[in-house]
Amino acid sequence: MEEDPTLQLRVFDLNCWAIRYLSKRLQERLQLIGDTLCQESFDLVLLQEVWSEQDYSVLKEKLGGCYPFSHYFRRGVIGSGLCVFSRFPILDTFLYQYSLNGYPYMLQHGDWFCGKSVGLVVIKISEIVFNIYVTHLHAEYCREKDAYLPHRVVQAWELAQFIRHTSAAADVLLLGGDLNTHPEDVGIRLLRGWTGLRDAFAEAKGFEGCEDGCTLVPRNCFAAKTELQPFPLGVRIDYVLYKATSDFVVKCKELRTTTGTAPGKDIPYSDHEAVMATLHVRRRDGAPGPARGAAGPALADVVNEASAEVRAGLHAARRRRSSSARTAALALLLLLLLLQAAAGLGTLAGWAAARPFPALASCLLALLAGGGLLLAAGLYLFHTVEVRMLQGAEEEMRLALHRCLGAAGAGAGARGRLSL
Amino acid sequence: MEEDPTLQLRVFDLNCWAIRYLSKRLQERLQLIGDTLCQESFDLVLLQEVWSEQDYSVLKEKLGGCYPFSHYFRRGVIGSGLCVFSRFPILDTFLYQYSLNGYPYMLQHGDWFCGKSVGLVVIKISEIVFNIYVTHLHAEYCREKDAYLPHRVVQAWELAQFIRHTSAAADVLLLGGDLNTHPEDVGIRLLRGWTGLRDAFAEAKGFEGCEDGCTLVPRNCFAAKTELQPFPLGVRIDYVLYKATSDFVVKCKELRTTTGTAPGKDIPYSDHEAVMATLHVRRRDGAPGPARGAAGPALADVVNEASAEVRAGLHAARRRRSSSARTAALALLLLLLLLQAAAGLGTLAGWAAARPFPALASCLLALLAGGGLLLAAGLYLFHTVEVRMLQGAEEEMRLALHRCLGAAGAGAGARGRLSL
Repeated sequence: MEEDPTLQLRVFDLNCWAIRYLSKRLQERLQLIGDTLCQESFDLVLLQEVWSEQDYSVLKEKLGGCYPFSHYFRRGVIGSGLCVFSRFPILDTFLYQYSLNGYPYMLQHGDWFCGKSVGLVVIKISEIVFNIYVTHLHAEYCREKDAYLPHRVVQAWELAQFIRHTSAAADVLLLGGDLNTHPEDVGIRLLRGWTGLRDAFAEAKGFEGCEDGCTLVPRNCFAAKTELQPFPLGVRIDYVLYKATSDFVVKCKELRTTTGTAPGKDIPYSDHEAVMATLHVRRRDGAPGPARGAAGPALADVVNEASAEVRAGLHAARRRRSSSARTAALALLLLLLLLQAAAGLGTLAGWAAARPFPALASCLLALLAGGGLLLAAGLYLFHTVEVRMLQGAEEEMRLALHRCLGAAGAGAGARGRLSL
Repeated sequence: MEEDPTLQLRVFDLNCWAIRYLSKRLQERLQLIGDTLCQESFDLVLLQEVWSEQDYSVLKEKLGGCYPFSHYFRRGVIGSGLCVFSRFPILDTFLYQYSLNGYPYMLQHGDWFCGKSVGLVVIKISEIVFNIYVTHLHAEYCREKDAYLPHRVVQAWELAQFIRHTSAAADVLLLGGDLNTHPEDVGIRLLRGWTGLRDAFAEAKGFEGCEDGCTLVPRNCFAAKTELQPFPLGVRIDYVLYKATSDFVVKCKELRTTTGTAPGKDIPYSDHEAVMATLHVRRRDGAPGPARGAAGPALADVVNEASAEVRAGLHAARRRRSSSARTAALALLLLLLLLQAAAGLGTLAGWAAARPFPALASCLLALLAGGGLLLAAGLYLFHTVEVRMLQGAEEEMRLALHRCLGAAGAGAGARGRLSL
């Protein structure tokens, strides 16, 4: 660093929308992504929704020349969908799976049996340790009536806690990913406030790309049009965030997004736009400046708001759990009644022969009741997990709030080398 | 610290065996544990297998006077079973759930639908930051033919990685828990080697308790006798481990275990013995001593051994996955054949009336085939998760090995403030 005072780092982040058999023109797009990455030679590539390891292998083979180091985060039935390509050796990796993983979303919205997680990759460039985080938070299905808002707030909180607890040994932190959260939403404000991460779009000296930095835009032919109806310009939900210890300064020199259809092609890279950031990292000369990020009371407001959201979610989850319990009890009762009726009829020999229709009908009804019982019991278990998760997050937030208000900075700052 | 050069910390660790409706004389034992903790006034109490939040609340109420701060880690359907009581304020908490959580064990061994995890609690005493970890690794069911050895090795690895990645901001680390691992097993050697944690039993100046520090002993009337048959003295599977940064020195002054039946009572506290450690923490005067723990090549040997175990497990998991796939295919085939037969017969009107027996028999057979299909599909999904988890751990270990051998210390040491 002494002989080279500024280190330039070029980062590429994209939700690849690589779902085999479902995503449109997948192989073409993967080739396109690979070609672009080879031509542009970034330093770090953070990808999400690469659900198939085969697709990762295709990319890995193609990118092996320019990005000799890579990691695919394996977890869950389908995987985490997260991977990282790097020009610099990867020293260590770690994966944290969020406590709730969209199993009920799958039932309700055709979502994936996936392990939503945050992946951490450690690299070192010129003796500067970088903690690189890549993640994909849960999607928002309906902004007006967003039943899963508390879940996404908890995911943002778990992400923030994971980054806080794992980042003390790093000089520079970098987070890239599809956060499925608008810039003004409580989730991202909580994440930024609690970790001190800064938004590359807001900080960038120069910007080029979709208006307002949007990454889900109507002009992208693969973007879901119905979701974007209330947002004619599109929405910004993919982010590059960063932060340095007090010994270093990170600046975002330039931020770019792709703008729908790829140059010279008839398709875009994905249904999302890619975010490309050029960061400058240098050792700080002289005394560290004032700490950035939300101060005690402002941070407390955000934690308070998030906590209220989680409490509302907890209330709803408890209601859903009770209703599952009632349904399960009803199904069990019906099943028992049918079994008793069958046993009663069974004693009259040849009941099935004499009355074939009621026997078959009862059989079908029993099947239905059994299925209902299983489903209701499964939902009960799920809502129990949900309640516990929300309780756990709420308690962690209460501790956080206590620290924001009580120790006002002193306690929070003392935790790590990274100042808030 | 300057005015009080040595800080004494008394730690109590116990697997409480608090399973409602199953554990023997649970309420009596909880009262006994509570009384003892109040009388002896430790600084920190780390408990495992407190599965019911109600039991935690009972303890919390009882201990509120001596241990005003506490945390119960909520996760999964049943919970994590982990909790911490402390004389000092808890500043922050975090929970990491291991990637595999014993669902198939539950089927095979009547084990629990639990969220096996490691909990982290941050406390600060006289400006020294303590990261306190509490965990419970998966049980060993049969030492001779331990099909789940790779899983336990992976849990030990995930625990080690979690501690490594979250500990850089702490001055002192402390881990207590039921590791279900004998002192010479690869799991604990890997954990100690990769984190640099030291075993309080091995380091203690004075020891009092069961021979060899055993924590599962035949003289405990609740301990499973069949499991202990090959070990007439008992086994040591509950640990207190610790470590400090180079600025601090931690020594274990005394280690004690309970010895079966509680003094003046006719029952023990649990089926495990409690581990009680008295630690002395002081700021190091002068230059830091040589780094402790396994050096590069020795550590590499352990990682290599663990990695071989994981590869063997991966091989077996792939075989199990294939066999589940075959079973599922067979069940599906049978189901389809039965449905086709039923449809064929159905065209002859009144088939059920004419032949009540085959209709009912087919119905039952179809139910059986359907159940078999569901079970086999479930197992297939589970083994897929298992394969991915083992692959992920193996890859992380490969990176670790590379760092042990290649950078021999330099790379590894640079990660955190805590030297290996």
